[in-house]
Amino acid sequence: MNFDQEVANNVKWLSSIGADPTGGTTRLLYSDSWVEAQNSVKNKFEEIGMKTHFDAIGNLFGRLEGSKYPNETILTGSHIDTVVNGGKLDGQYGVLASYMAAKMLQEKYGQPLRNLEVISMAEEEGSRFPYAFWGSKNLVLEAKKEDLEDIADFDGVKFVDAMRKAGFDFRKEDEKIREDLKAFVEIHIEQGNVLETEKKSVGVVTSIVGQKRYTIVLKGQANHAGTTPMKLRKDAVYAFSKIVTQSIGKAEKIGEPLVLTFGKVEPKPNTVNVVPGEVLFTMDCRHTDQEELNQFTHEIEEDMKKIAADMGMEISIDLWMNEPPVPMDEKIVTALKEASEKNNINYRMMHSGAGHDSQIIAPYIPTAMLFVPSINGISHNPAEDTKNEDLVEGIKTLAAALYELAYVE
Amino acid sequence: MNFDQEVANNVKWLSSIGADPTGGTTRLLYSDSWVEAQNSVKNKFEEIGMKTHFDAIGNLFGRLEGSKYPNETILTGSHIDTVVNGGKLDGQYGVLASYMAAKMLQEKYGQPLRNLEVISMAEEEGSRFPYAFWGSKNLVLEAKKEDLEDIADFDGVKFVDAMRKAGFDFRKEDEKIREDLKAFVEIHIEQGNVLETEKKSVGVVTSIVGQKRYTIVLKGQANHAGTTPMKLRKDAVYAFSKIVTQSIGKAEKIGEPLVLTFGKVEPKPNTVNVVPGEVLFTMDCRHTDQEELNQFTHEIEEDMKKIAADMGMEISIDLWMNEPPVPMDEKIVTALKEASEKNNINYRMMHSGAGHDSQIIAPYIPTAMLFVPSINGISHNPAEDTKNEDLVEGIKTLAAALYELAYVE
Repeated sequence: MNFDQEVANNVKWLSSIGADPTGGTTRLLYSDSWVEAQNSVKNKFEEIGMKTHFDAIGNLFGRLEGSKYPNETILTGSHIDTVVNGGKLDGQYGVLASYMAAKMLQEKYGQPLRNLEVISMAEEEGSRFPYAFWGSKNLVLEAKKEDLEDIADFDGVKFVDAMRKAGFDFRKEDEKIREDLKAFVEIHIEQGNVLETEKKSVGVVTSIVGQKRYTIVLKGQANHAGTTPMKLRKDAVYAFSKIVTQSIGKAEKIGEPLVLTFGKVEPKPNTVNVVPGEVLFTMDCRHTDQEELNQFTHEIEEDMKKIAADMGMEISIDLWMNEPPVPMDEKIVTALKEASEKNNINYRMMHSGAGHDSQIIAPYIPTAMLFVPSINGISHNPAEDTKNEDLVEGIKTLAAALYELAYVE
Repeated sequence: MNFDQEVANNVKWLSSIGADPTGGTTRLLYSDSWVEAQNSVKNKFEEIGMKTHFDAIGNLFGRLEGSKYPNETILTGSHIDTVVNGGKLDGQYGVLASYMAAKMLQEKYGQPLRNLEVISMAEEEGSRFPYAFWGSKNLVLEAKKEDLEDIADFDGVKFVDAMRKAGFDFRKEDEKIREDLKAFVEIHIEQGNVLETEKKSVGVVTSIVGQKRYTIVLKGQANHAGTTPMKLRKDAVYAFSKIVTQSIGKAEKIGEPLVLTFGKVEPKPNTVNVVPGEVLFTMDCRHTDQEELNQFTHEIEEDMKKIAADMGMEISIDLWMNEPPVPMDEKIVTALKEASEKNNINYRMMHSGAGHDSQIIAPYIPTAMLFVPSINGISHNPAEDTKNEDLVEGIKTLAAALYELAYVE
């Protein structure tokens, strides 16, 4: 079996655990299919001689021991859980790619100088319980027991009970962060259409965007759509439209890496023959630079207030998510870039517009990421896909970088 | 009891029939409270010596016989039904005002030269069954049996069964339109805020607007709000906003009597972190002049198509309502205007932006309307109200006009 075939088979194999009738995969934290997937991956790790263990909460580690630096570990991997009715690649491709890169390196170069560990993280999506990044937040000891003790899934199953049923429990209170972890590299699908549009096989991620999310309510006045002259209206949909037209116009002018989205719009009463008296809408704004993100959102907030005031309306602006940008580690980014060039990989430097485990880990351990293209930019959907040749290129790039990190003095 | 007090008492009395626990009135076609209201109004008509009768479907007529022209009838009135949880004035004020104007004229001048008839029409709102103007459409024989035979209310009660239970039935197939009807005058609340804003007590209606209603679907592409650069987006909410901003801007410049409303907006998937791939929205446009209405909507349709094309999106435009404007009868409008002036009524000429029974009747019988102000423009709501002094001014104006029509050679 050639390598390309092995990649395709592995993707098919892992995504079959938790396959749902629509052609997608649903593998939620601590579910039966999740337990089966983690144990199956553990067996796979052990087949190539890796030492394996689970941490307290269910992150799986597979380790090739280093010959020279037993106190230095290069970590690579991603998360094993999926969203409800997800695809075959989000998270799990990163686990498989890390495993296959390690396997390839061991076959070619034998034992590494530093420990090379693959991690299959317990959870990232927040799809079963209202808590995301459970895996990576335990790795860096950011997860707090008290945030989980009272939460339950949609069926009312408590987080704690699900975790214990799967054979895991909260980590010990006095645990210390691992000092041997010298680098973390994650490979993931892009979930966007930049690589595909530019016909690139691999993206080297330089930073993960900061995100601000708002809910905004505009209050005008509901009126009869026939009997209220234009000049006597306070039409909240009109005010909303002015805000969106002006704001997105500005965002387009600034361009990458800034993005701005008005994803949710709920007018009241939402009827053909009533002038809308109120609109609730959301705004999602992202940028890799904290200051530029803040400057832009400040300007848009002021614009909104002015438009509302000019039209005699009330506006309330609620900022409910404010995640800072996370830069990737320069040295590892350079290693990934050089590995791409040495191996004639068709790559580009880019940022991540989505959140990943790497953003949780980066503040504690030197971290970087690789992307492979998403066909039509689709993810979180059974149609999520990547050309097998790109999956292969991603693994080769990852392996080349891990070689530099774990095999070279 | 003075006249002002009598007006207030009558409004209170009639709106109490079908009063609901929220302070509003719910009196749907052929319901028990509807039957009670029509019979109570019939008794009231008879108390002042009117000859009364119901037509086949339940329109109630109260008649003061003419002394000189037995084949000429001046008709006045409005509808007795309400919307669900409606107010105390919509429709029923017109019935009461017509009755009180006739009573006032009889007390002051005795028998009219022409027959003076008050009509309490069965239905206008379309609130119980999916059919509106049932009362006026029967008066002018426009209602067609086959359109009603299969319809039912939300509880599954068939229209035909409800009508028969209330004691009525379809009119005879060979019925002919009444040739004695020489004029119809309806008084109604404005349901807008023009009279209130301009501090007028009465509006003389010159025409009822034509209406066009559309459902429009814009199809762009749903994408991840973080990973999709601005230049690779097909954001349907952005396209919608450009359309609304530009179209309402144009409508504002043109001004009265044009009105334009985008009342309903439904993006897909309507989530904070997804670029909206689709928007369904409605457009409601009204004008008193058919040609100007058509010209404006044609321009807006072309604008929309251009905006969609420029942004690489598909657009489908469905025009599902296209009611022509209905001018009021010039002679009766003049009579109403002169009656207002003679009686020092604080009035203005205006159009109606809402639909009324008068628009159904006008093509068959010379018709005109009067409006009284709506406080804050509110209607179809328990808060619907008009100052009692304005209700009184409206009745006085109506009486003065009916005097010219029914008492003068």
